[in-house]
Amino acid sequence: MRYARVLVNGRAAWGRVGDRDVELLSGSPIDGRPTVNGAIPRATAVWLPPVVPPVFYAVGMNYRRHIEHAGAALPDRPEVGYRANNALTGHGSPIVRPRDVEGRFEAEPELVAVIGRTVRRASHEEARASVFGWTIGNDVSARAWQHRDRTFWRSKNSDTFKPMGPWIETDVDALAQRTTLRVNGQERAAFPTGDMVFDPYDHMVEITKYITLHPGDVLWMGAEATCQLEPGDTVDVEISGIGVLTNPVQEAPA
Amino acid sequence: MRYARVLVNGRAAWGRVGDRDVELLSGSPIDGRPTVNGAIPRATAVWLPPVVPPVFYAVGMNYRRHIEHAGAALPDRPEVGYRANNALTGHGSPIVRPRDVEGRFEAEPELVAVIGRTVRRASHEEARASVFGWTIGNDVSARAWQHRDRTFWRSKNSDTFKPMGPWIETDVDALAQRTTLRVNGQERAAFPTGDMVFDPYDHMVEITKYITLHPGDVLWMGAEATCQLEPGDTVDVEISGIGVLTNPVQEAPA
Repeated sequence: MRYARVLVNGRAAWGRVGDRDVELLSGSPIDGRPTVNGAIPRATAVWLPPVVPPVFYAVGMNYRRHIEHAGAALPDRPEVGYRANNALTGHGSPIVRPRDVEGRFEAEPELVAVIGRTVRRASHEEARASVFGWTIGNDVSARAWQHRDRTFWRSKNSDTFKPMGPWIETDVDALAQRTTLRVNGQERAAFPTGDMVFDPYDHMVEITKYITLHPGDVLWMGAEATCQLEPGDTVDVEISGIGVLTNPVQEAPA
Repeated sequence: MRYARVLVNGRAAWGRVGDRDVELLSGSPIDGRPTVNGAIPRATAVWLPPVVPPVFYAVGMNYRRHIEHAGAALPDRPEVGYRANNALTGHGSPIVRPRDVEGRFEAEPELVAVIGRTVRRASHEEARASVFGWTIGNDVSARAWQHRDRTFWRSKNSDTFKPMGPWIETDVDALAQRTTLRVNGQERAAFPTGDMVFDPYDHMVEITKYITLHPGDVLWMGAEATCQLEPGDTVDVEISGIGVLTNPVQEAPA
């Protein structure tokens, strides 16, 4: 099943995505059993980030080839950082590049796990059973700020720097798929989703030794490859079995 | 006015705190105009974190004496990091120390600004007008993890590591107050709230160049001094004009 959040009369509504329509739901399917109360044609949908997470987790260096390329050491245990909800934007909405960005401005195509249950001290098996579904993230990054600032606050969390969507797919073998990054229709990178040092369940086991995961929390799983973005570009992140997250890139107004 | 969130029949309810009672409100006073629909005796209140922020901002080194003590350079511009909502807990609830914590386990007493409006590209004056009120935070930190891990994920964001409360005070000159840290009733540190390198409004001006602040976002302002906590201790953070945030410290069950 594919679940999304769409804009209906200026408000966010949960929807179940079909081939032609988005059936509108009475509430969240993550921690409830909503009923259907209408539908809109899928072609007219305005897509919001498919969930606004209570906590927004992001794994850093996690793909072997990325780490080798960076000349870094393989991590010896799963660790996690954070991103901020202000930066989220939906499928089809613009990534806005601030006018004072310096250095490279890059896309990072990522698999995203959406947590479905309250979970603490999970086994690997419990972690697996606690994932509601999977979506796609683009961890847009301004590299000069990333390297120079004390934290990732503006390099990775400026408004619109975290496109997520278009929907949450509940029925996919997410670690056996292929991630493809395209700019203006041209393939710029492609890699297997599963070529991770530590998989989502490894991370959940480690996180939940100290931290309670809650329904709607998201875990962005890192990228193997990145590419430069310029205003005027359109960037696609496709993960087979899930979908395609597409966003135009714009320069901020003066 | 003092606004809090309290537990009523197992659910969070907003309240307006008086000397004897907490009047229960129909919704959030931050971005609404709720009506009063009942009251509970203040002595029986179970206090929750006074807000669950859309984004949880935290300033690091920001008090002159703390920075000099650490031998660090004064920051040349305001920067900000993040904490995670899972770690929040209310006034009176325990801080639970994980059994495998290593090194010092410390309290950091902090002034907290609660944002009241949606704000982007704020002037200093607009920033000032966008603060709804002020509360108190304790940025509990496990130092060995803080220094050794790649991020602050478990050192500062393990469950219960972020007591906040007891309420939001809307009528206080927050930068002209005194912060006092006590353990088991004994004063361990005290400093003026306002002795910051960059004040909350400086931070909001810088943040909102890139980021939209939203109602309910919180900005923890850093500490001048810290002290060690042990299981069995009770820690108070008092800020004059706001209140006292009290939490017992416990060891996690085996």
